[in-house]
Amino acid sequence: MSSIFIINNRGEREPFSWRKVYQSALRVGADKALARHIATRVKKEAYNNISTREIFQKVEEYLYQDYPKAGMRFSLKEAMRKLGPSGFPFEKYIGEIFKRLGFTVQINQYLAGKCVLHEIDFLAKIDRQLLIGECKYHALIGSRVDLKVAMATYACYLDLKTGGFFKRKALKNLQTRSILVTNTKFSSEAIRYANCMKMDLLGWRYPENRGLEYVIESNKFYPITILPSLTGECLKLCGEKAIFLVEDILKEDAHHCAQVSGVPEKKILKLQEEARTLLED
Amino acid sequence: MSSIFIINNRGEREPFSWRKVYQSALRVGADKALARHIATRVKKEAYNNISTREIFQKVEEYLYQDYPKAGMRFSLKEAMRKLGPSGFPFEKYIGEIFKRLGFTVQINQYLAGKCVLHEIDFLAKIDRQLLIGECKYHALIGSRVDLKVAMATYACYLDLKTGGFFKRKALKNLQTRSILVTNTKFSSEAIRYANCMKMDLLGWRYPENRGLEYVIESNKFYPITILPSLTGECLKLCGEKAIFLVEDILKEDAHHCAQVSGVPEKKILKLQEEARTLLED
Repeated sequence: MSSIFIINNRGEREPFSWRKVYQSALRVGADKALARHIATRVKKEAYNNISTREIFQKVEEYLYQDYPKAGMRFSLKEAMRKLGPSGFPFEKYIGEIFKRLGFTVQINQYLAGKCVLHEIDFLAKIDRQLLIGECKYHALIGSRVDLKVAMATYACYLDLKTGGFFKRKALKNLQTRSILVTNTKFSSEAIRYANCMKMDLLGWRYPENRGLEYVIESNKFYPITILPSLTGECLKLCGEKAIFLVEDILKEDAHHCAQVSGVPEKKILKLQEEARTLLED
Repeated sequence: MSSIFIINNRGEREPFSWRKVYQSALRVGADKALARHIATRVKKEAYNNISTREIFQKVEEYLYQDYPKAGMRFSLKEAMRKLGPSGFPFEKYIGEIFKRLGFTVQINQYLAGKCVLHEIDFLAKIDRQLLIGECKYHALIGSRVDLKVAMATYACYLDLKTGGFFKRKALKNLQTRSILVTNTKFSSEAIRYANCMKMDLLGWRYPENRGLEYVIESNKFYPITILPSLTGECLKLCGEKAIFLVEDILKEDAHHCAQVSGVPEKKILKLQEEARTLLED
């Protein structure tokens, strides 16, 4: 067992784990030899009370050197953190994902409940199903969406169900569900409550094997914040043009885009090159 | 109209109001002449962008000089802020108030809901009525308890109502209500929601004319943090002895209390003197 301790995202001490680093490298597509090489190198460089974040940065860097695509995929969690709250809001990205999955999506809707008016982050409709979506973005990666948030989301759903909005004829035969989406994890109590109330949850590694990271990975719905060369001015440009997903940057004419926005063309070309690397099969 | 602007507790600019200062002095028992004198003095000393807090401190100081009892009463809001979160929790003080009002009170209870276990700040029972209490303490005086908190409190109540705890025989014929208590104000949406859901609210100036400040004033349930001479060591002593209300400090034997606690006897005698001044008719 390792005698080196690390400080995780929640500020707790835990032993350094070679296996965790190894598996995290495998997970993003490194082969066994590369994963072994990286885990051993990171272990050698780790010191007592090193933060999880610093370990992640090392893994990302070493992956990127040998296998850029895996390096980018590794930074997905951090890329999600770079979304929102201002300019590039998490709920817009989530809305975009649901659109690509075939839903009709409306974001930031004000709907009348029985008691009060609610601001709903998104409504997503497919066939006879309507999801009422609440998004919780956390800048701190280690934080969790807790029971109080789940309860407030459910109470909002209840108030809507008995309110004016759902009395509309067009919504009569729809099956409605409440869904709470986050870029981080859920507390175990929030999960127990949501399951019991038949509320949907979508977050980091939840539901197991079908979490947000899986939805993104398997469909290549990467947020543009995952691209290493993305700077503030490009992020602003993407926000203005509603480019939320990496694949959308490939649809732009770099030359025209540069002329209109004032962002240098070579910066846009660099982003497109990274996008191609990330998305290639 | 005054040309001087102040910054209120919520960080907004508003014109200085002689009348507000005058009325706040009247409210705590100053006569018209004293209230007029204080309002005029404070107006003379006010400068642009002075904070509400600084104005309050001036009023308190000038009241205290001429009429100590009114000076102490004036600081009630600040005394509430000095409660909790650590050592001297708000929910213990609130529990104590409900006890004095004739309720049987239990604080910090874990109760099984249908879905999860809930930590309840207090249960208060009188006759066939049972209140399920949630306390929200805010260190920032200008903050408000918002709709999300009200919804989470209601969802918790719903989960308890359909859960294991309320299936107990002893609770069968009780009328239960959810009550949300705060040392600050409620947002207008939280109030609308609570009224609609038949939840009780108790906070600063709410319900109108029967708010927490009224319950405290009319029953002389002042928290011991209102006493100007209360220092950290005395606060610790009071916490240990479960002395939450000003009237309780008068029941103590100062000499014995000093010997046991190590707090100087003259400090305790000073607190008792202030307590008598505040509570006298």
